Amino acid sequence: MKWSKLHIYTLKEAPADAEIISHKLLVRGGFIKKLAPGIYTYGNLLVRSLRKFENIIREELNKRNCIEVLMPVVHPQALWEETGRWNEMGDGLLKFKNRNDQGFCLAATHEEAVTDYVRHDIKSYRDLPKNIYQIQTKYRDEIRPRFGLMRGREFTMKDAYSFDINPEEALKSYQSMYDAYKAIFDRLGLNYRIVQADAGNIGGSQTHEFQVLADAGEDALLVSTESDFAANVEVAPAIDAVPYISKETTLKDKEKFATPNLKTIAQLSKSLKVPENELVKTLFFSSNEGFNPKDQTIKPFCVLLRGSDEVNPVKLKNMLGMVNPPLMLTDEEVHSVSGAMPGSCGPVGLNIPIYIDNGVLGLKNFIVGANEDNFHFKNINIDRDFKVTKSGDLRMAKEGDKCPSGKGTLKSYRGIEVGHVFYLGTKYSQKMRAQYLDKNGKAQPIEMGCYGIGVTRTLQAAIEQCFDVDGIIWPKSIAPFHVHICVLDINKEAVMSVAEKIMTDLENQNIEVLMDDRDERPGSKFKDADLLGMPVRIVIGEKGLNNNEIEVVERKTKSVSKVNPTQVVELVKSLLK
Amino acid sequence: MKWSKLHIYTLKEAPADAEIISHKLLVRGGFIKKLAPGIYTYGNLLVRSLRKFENIIREELNKRNCIEVLMPVVHPQALWEETGRWNEMGDGLLKFKNRNDQGFCLAATHEEAVTDYVRHDIKSYRDLPKNIYQIQTKYRDEIRPRFGLMRGREFTMKDAYSFDINPEEALKSYQSMYDAYKAIFDRLGLNYRIVQADAGNIGGSQTHEFQVLADAGEDALLVSTESDFAANVEVAPAIDAVPYISKETTLKDKEKFATPNLKTIAQLSKSLKVPENELVKTLFFSSNEGFNPKDQTIKPFCVLLRGSDEVNPVKLKNMLGMVNPPLMLTDEEVHSVSGAMPGSCGPVGLNIPIYIDNGVLGLKNFIVGANEDNFHFKNINIDRDFKVTKSGDLRMAKEGDKCPSGKGTLKSYRGIEVGHVFYLGTKYSQKMRAQYLDKNGKAQPIEMGCYGIGVTRTLQAAIEQCFDVDGIIWPKSIAPFHVHICVLDINKEAVMSVAEKIMTDLENQNIEVLMDDRDERPGSKFKDADLLGMPVRIVIGEKGLNNNEIEVVERKTKSVSKVNPTQVVELVKSLLK
Repeated sequence: MKWSKLHIYTLKEAPADAEIISHKLLVRGGFIKKLAPGIYTYGNLLVRSLRKFENIIREELNKRNCIEVLMPVVHPQALWEETGRWNEMGDGLLKFKNRNDQGFCLAATHEEAVTDYVRHDIKSYRDLPKNIYQIQTKYRDEIRPRFGLMRGREFTMKDAYSFDINPEEALKSYQSMYDAYKAIFDRLGLNYRIVQADAGNIGGSQTHEFQVLADAGEDALLVSTESDFAANVEVAPAIDAVPYISKETTLKDKEKFATPNLKTIAQLSKSLKVPENELVKTLFFSSNEGFNPKDQTIKPFCVLLRGSDEVNPVKLKNMLGMVNPPLMLTDEEVHSVSGAMPGSCGPVGLNIPIYIDNGVLGLKNFIVGANEDNFHFKNINIDRDFKVTKSGDLRMAKEGDKCPSGKGTLKSYRGIEVGHVFYLGTKYSQKMRAQYLDKNGKAQPIEMGCYGIGVTRTLQAAIEQCFDVDGIIWPKSIAPFHVHICVLDINKEAVMSVAEKIMTDLENQNIEVLMDDRDERPGSKFKDADLLGMPVRIVIGEKGLNNNEIEVVERKTKSVSKVNPTQVVELVKSLLK
Repeated sequence: MKWSKLHIYTLKEAPADAEIISHKLLVRGGFIKKLAPGIYTYGNLLVRSLRKFENIIREELNKRNCIEVLMPVVHPQALWEETGRWNEMGDGLLKFKNRNDQGFCLAATHEEAVTDYVRHDIKSYRDLPKNIYQIQTKYRDEIRPRFGLMRGREFTMKDAYSFDINPEEALKSYQSMYDAYKAIFDRLGLNYRIVQADAGNIGGSQTHEFQVLADAGEDALLVSTESDFAANVEVAPAIDAVPYISKETTLKDKEKFATPNLKTIAQLSKSLKVPENELVKTLFFSSNEGFNPKDQTIKPFCVLLRGSDEVNPVKLKNMLGMVNPPLMLTDEEVHSVSGAMPGSCGPVGLNIPIYIDNGVLGLKNFIVGANEDNFHFKNINIDRDFKVTKSGDLRMAKEGDKCPSGKGTLKSYRGIEVGHVFYLGTKYSQKMRAQYLDKNGKAQPIEMGCYGIGVTRTLQAAIEQCFDVDGIIWPKSIAPFHVHICVLDINKEAVMSVAEKIMTDLENQNIEVLMDDRDERPGSKFKDADLLGMPVRIVIGEKGLNNNEIEVVERKTKSVSKVNPTQVVELVKSLLK
């Protein structure tokens, strides 16, 4: 395909709102163009990559008896009310009324739609298993869309849903999709990890995320140095490398002391010369799920952690059986609950639930805020000075912690979540009465799983992982074209005819070629070739041809070969292997 | 592909809301399933047809240097306000606000989006021509969706947009798309007509519709018996086969007479013994475009036609230069304007614009309502008794009228509009400042055209044209599978192994096979095969195999061949040619 027949316009500068490299490169290469925040037109080059990735997905899923359908983008309110998610999903679900005053939403996910699709058809255990998938536009009303296709509003997803007779069969379907995803991301050729994760508000009990490793990733991952343990930090169990157990043997008397200007753990630690992991901090949250927007009551509780630890909102949510992580109280709300501003608060005398992280259990005679501004207590002890509602693992695990597998320690990575597999159980089928008759003729709820791949997000993740200072380095599997021919002397007939012949020869081998036939300087053609990132660049110019030479450059390594025109096709084929 | 690996559930009965045969068959075959009125999930079989049709479209467009992109479904309000269509499009455009209180709509068409896409890139005449297309979900907020995918809310369209330097070049692009559409619909194998049509409120001056002929079609077409003239009735010029010119030579005196109980043209004609085409009827409209919902003022005018003719609202709209056809007044509004109820109204004494159809020009001493209930005037004459604001072709042409080409007469057909090509001119580029610099360095608005194919609508139109009493007869080009194998004795290993071998042999020839491997009665398998409509059915059973025979049935003709198993593949190939 000739450049002159396409619509490719590159930019020297990225727009101000592009923060990460992949977003900058996508815009600079004309792969995407913003129509509104988080809403992009995909140019021809990106559409080519998109179709290739879609086909890889289709091939791997069809191989495993998954059935492609296409479900609507616009869903009726009544459908989402059947599962309660009309309210549960919050404002991320874009809701509206049509001209007939009927409620609709733009689907952010399709559990309800697919369950409705199958529940009328599936009658008996003989109809199962089924795995139904689609590749479709989805919409999430992000407040602050950012990072291009990574956290946009409109995006393309592949979502699949499995239907089985019992948990054992459902977990087989889960494993089959897990394998399919491995095959898909292996074919992409990206560096990724499969990690344990939280099931979020989609329900279910078992889930893995497929995370492409990249420094700009929004997810923090912890991976074992010795075992195959890998988890999103949200769910990674926190185990101190060296457990801290206080050596003190007696419980000393509680004592209040003035701490003017000591608000933070760091300040307290420095001034009192007590290590941060022997101090205790008190955080305040509200357990009001906010499902009823009219009920603005705060239902406060507090969480105690060692000063050196961070609270893990997902662990907190799961301990409390909530759908979404609880919100922290504002300073004013903290004051009205505790009588002091944050920095001087503690558990003593509070009349609200008190949850503590396991790390605090090893402490004795510790320091907490006195619930009086500029005062703290010392020699505080659990049970004697306050009652614990419940203790558990509520802190973030971190690099250097002991691996939960028992082998090795945890190492930190950043990841971009590109896929997930969930075992859902009967959460949706029970609410929506999606049942089958078992061998005894008894109605049973269908066991479900759901499986997503962020299709457009993956394309950007590939760039976030595969680039250099000059631009994108597309993985061969999803490169818009395999080869980028820069013709240096387009007005010389002899040069153009060699270029055309090489293009035709390559295309006859199913190698896709973009030929830059613009009347531009060589330097600007090379810059664009590097920016756009096709795996192989071929340079054809009069000077080279006079020496019977054509230059072939591998984008990734920048290694240059100068070969006889008759050798070009074979060389390109070997580079693309 | 085996039936047992898919999700196909057929229905004996169509739902009550399915009025036309194609809608009934789509639902009965499980090709579509309703999620909400006008919003459907497409089953695997329809997705297969959809992908085939999409690929035919892509091949023909790519051949003609069209560039595929993907534009968003959700558009910002400000974009549509640039062209005024935020208001002009009326309630069919689904508008909503997001959580940040910003206005958005679900795109019903993409002129604004594509013009925005190119206006930042196209700088000079050297950047043109360009033709940009996408295949994307679209949404129209139909008040009463009906006919399945034919007049649904959510649907798939292919839309293309051409950009040129001047009208001559734009018309070349138009012709190229016209040719592409011909190639596409020829490849589909449907019986269709290309007709002249109205440009609607999308703007522009030249347009053709591609209409699949079917009795249930919503469009009335008139096609010449002798020339290649074909037009949507909306725009077909009306020319009487035998022009009617009154033979009366003198203008008689106006006379009022009582006409109790004579309200309709038919009643008047019968009672007064005057042919309907010598009577004149008066219709009342309002020219309030309704763009400002707060302005409910009626701006009335009337239209005079012969009693035998029907008004053509599109011609009326075009004569008045309106964006949408004018609305008829209610009976009460007519009374307040004329002093009488409809049936007794006429032009005499009215103080509003009076438009008359050319057909009335040939009449003398005619009868009209007297604007007094139960009274008419006779011997009314143009100019003497009332002033004409403007005359022109305002009536519907009809079967038997003279062909505007001068050759032959017009014949009526019903059609389903599946494609259209529009020459837009600079309507959008001027409003949106999409300009290029010409050879003299002067900024010029880009000349545009737009081109649509209703992708899902075409699939249904194919069924509406290709069915029999037993079900669908898919055109080979877009059949979900080419061959439907009914295995009659699935529990006999010998039978299944022959069936599997034939399926494999066919698939090795790139022939797609659906094998019904269900444990069902032969009759029910045959019924489903007829309903689902693959072009060729193969019946494999023990009885036949004992005679070394396999039955091959052509779905369209129902012609049956019994052949040796070794001959099946060749026979199928010849049937699919």
